[in-house]
Amino acid sequence: MIFKLIKDEGPISRAEIARITNLSKTTISQYVESLLSANLVQERYYSDKKGVGLKGTLLEFSKNSGVVIGVDIGFTSMDIAVCNLAAEILNKYSLKISTKENPHIILKLLTEEANKLLVALGISKERIKGLGIGLPSPIDFESNSPICPMTMPDWDRFPIKAYLEKEMGLPVFIEDDANIMALGEKCAGIGKNEDNFIYIKIGTGIGSGIICNGQLYRGLKGCAGEIGHIQIDNETDLCICGNKGCLTALAAGPAISKKGLVYATEGKSKALADLYEANGLVTCEDIGRLANYGDLTCVEIIKESGLYIGKVLAKVVNILNPSLIVIGGGVSKLGDVFIAAIREEVYRSAFPINTRDLNLQRSSLGDTAGIIGAASLAVNELFNYEQITSLLSYNKSN
Amino acid sequence: MIFKLIKDEGPISRAEIARITNLSKTTISQYVESLLSANLVQERYYSDKKGVGLKGTLLEFSKNSGVVIGVDIGFTSMDIAVCNLAAEILNKYSLKISTKENPHIILKLLTEEANKLLVALGISKERIKGLGIGLPSPIDFESNSPICPMTMPDWDRFPIKAYLEKEMGLPVFIEDDANIMALGEKCAGIGKNEDNFIYIKIGTGIGSGIICNGQLYRGLKGCAGEIGHIQIDNETDLCICGNKGCLTALAAGPAISKKGLVYATEGKSKALADLYEANGLVTCEDIGRLANYGDLTCVEIIKESGLYIGKVLAKVVNILNPSLIVIGGGVSKLGDVFIAAIREEVYRSAFPINTRDLNLQRSSLGDTAGIIGAASLAVNELFNYEQITSLLSYNKSN
Repeated sequence: MIFKLIKDEGPISRAEIARITNLSKTTISQYVESLLSANLVQERYYSDKKGVGLKGTLLEFSKNSGVVIGVDIGFTSMDIAVCNLAAEILNKYSLKISTKENPHIILKLLTEEANKLLVALGISKERIKGLGIGLPSPIDFESNSPICPMTMPDWDRFPIKAYLEKEMGLPVFIEDDANIMALGEKCAGIGKNEDNFIYIKIGTGIGSGIICNGQLYRGLKGCAGEIGHIQIDNETDLCICGNKGCLTALAAGPAISKKGLVYATEGKSKALADLYEANGLVTCEDIGRLANYGDLTCVEIIKESGLYIGKVLAKVVNILNPSLIVIGGGVSKLGDVFIAAIREEVYRSAFPINTRDLNLQRSSLGDTAGIIGAASLAVNELFNYEQITSLLSYNKSN
Repeated sequence: MIFKLIKDEGPISRAEIARITNLSKTTISQYVESLLSANLVQERYYSDKKGVGLKGTLLEFSKNSGVVIGVDIGFTSMDIAVCNLAAEILNKYSLKISTKENPHIILKLLTEEANKLLVALGISKERIKGLGIGLPSPIDFESNSPICPMTMPDWDRFPIKAYLEKEMGLPVFIEDDANIMALGEKCAGIGKNEDNFIYIKIGTGIGSGIICNGQLYRGLKGCAGEIGHIQIDNETDLCICGNKGCLTALAAGPAISKKGLVYATEGKSKALADLYEANGLVTCEDIGRLANYGDLTCVEIIKESGLYIGKVLAKVVNILNPSLIVIGGGVSKLGDVFIAAIREEVYRSAFPINTRDLNLQRSSLGDTAGIIGAASLAVNELFNYEQITSLLSYNKSN
């Protein structure tokens, strides 16, 4: 509790800690001593305005006493960052991958690139504290492996945590991608001061991370936030999960580009038809660019996707009454028409009281939400653990 | 923390508290002394199996050191109970009311009947610690009053907490009805050992209470769980909230009896038509009774309502990944056909991983979930407060 106060609220004085916790000065002194000797917190001296003499000491988290590695694996890319213990990025690297490949190949790439980043920063082995990783799959937290990952069957039940801990010699923590992005927004983005918000990732798939009462909410088996497989009633498009009318099948990146392709071949939009003839394919980015140039068919495609997402988010708003919805992922770059369509439908169909103080915004962190969140996951997990062990060693010495 | 351990895990020894909390024996002794002198906990002596001599003392919550009043106001009934500090019912009374009446009338009835119960039990004034109350309305927790209550406009922004605190001379805590029922199931029902579950109340309206990570989840403004106003896409029935296709408009008690009336007048079911001719109305209970006698039209009506509820619960399951859904409220008494229809649709349309370990059951507490939950709300709130003040006074004396 004292450590959490110093980490989250620091720099803070011992007197302020006593006031907030109602613990005795002796108890606080003992704990602070053990935290100082474990190099988890440090003292900062401050003087009065004129700089004449010391006025006292504050305590703050030693955020540069170590580093963690944050990794965000998407279906088509992998981002790796080395961060300090406040999850601030020191160095990062992105590469194109495909999760259709075997996890051995991808994870080997991961360890190689992470080690290059560490070498470039000149970081000694003992300063590297852990690794957090986000994956585009539900996670089974008993085996710490992906379960039933769509379009990446080779990864099903692959023991990622155990594999990476052996390869890297570090504690490893895994989480699904939308959850780490929610943690990223909580740590350093527009969710920083919000206790109840949703991060929605719209890309090849659609998923969400939920922050409830200030903490990541995982549900019984880590499958909370599976909004990509919420059905739009009476829609019939088949989804890869086996159900019909899932949000992912109607509104994610592939659904948007598929619709573009249909309209291109039907000749509904000349710009789309020209583009298809030139490139042999239509991408989600193409549709966004053409919409920005004023192609109304592309505007319509984008708006339709936004309306479907809004329909589902309205239900999420009724259930969770959040203060904020953060829209992220590659498809969120489609721009203001897309975000406006989502807002329109949420305000139209959610219960009015639940949208009174609702804010709906694009991610402020963009592509870095994942790596910051993965680093933040590692820090949170490490310092839960370290805190307990430091307390235990304190108690043993008494 | 020590008090919470004794209250939730007791009877418990001081040594066990030290093991769990990692606090020093001196610190624990001091806190326990202040809890004992405040009569919040008591000691229990235990001997070995043969009863030869004392073996030690355990600490337990003094659940009979006071009482709280639990009140559950529905649209057509009010239940009042006097409970001990473990929210166990000592005495209760139910009466028919209508929330269309002015709150002054209903709350006057409440105080009269509560006082009668207290007198019947011979409870002295100083032993009455507080009152918890559930209302069929969203609650504004800044003003502690109902906001935008459907079909009970006189109650909008009525300062219930302040009014009852003045009338009863007790601390009063208010909450929406489905939330207190969820608390009731958490305290004494089938949710007792579950950390992530949903209670859904199906009656004149439909609402839900959400337990996340072991605690009631209220959302930003206390409006979490508003599932009665989640829309079934493409349905057009107008709801009193102003939207179309809300679950309440399609599946709650009035929608069921309205459908019964239509089928009675259309002559689709002879049994329904006879009943309507005899009574001049068709109730939800009538439809349940006729269904049990084998009337297929009534079975169809019940099943249709269950399927709509299942459609919405499937979305809740995708978002929250709960371990348990508890079905309560008057309409839940329609029986197994109703519950089976809900289950069928949840398993059909939720994301398969999210239903792997899902349990869906009727409330085990039935009509008492509300009063137990309201009493439990009061106890939880009182002992948050008392705990803090006792800690404060402890610190002051140092």
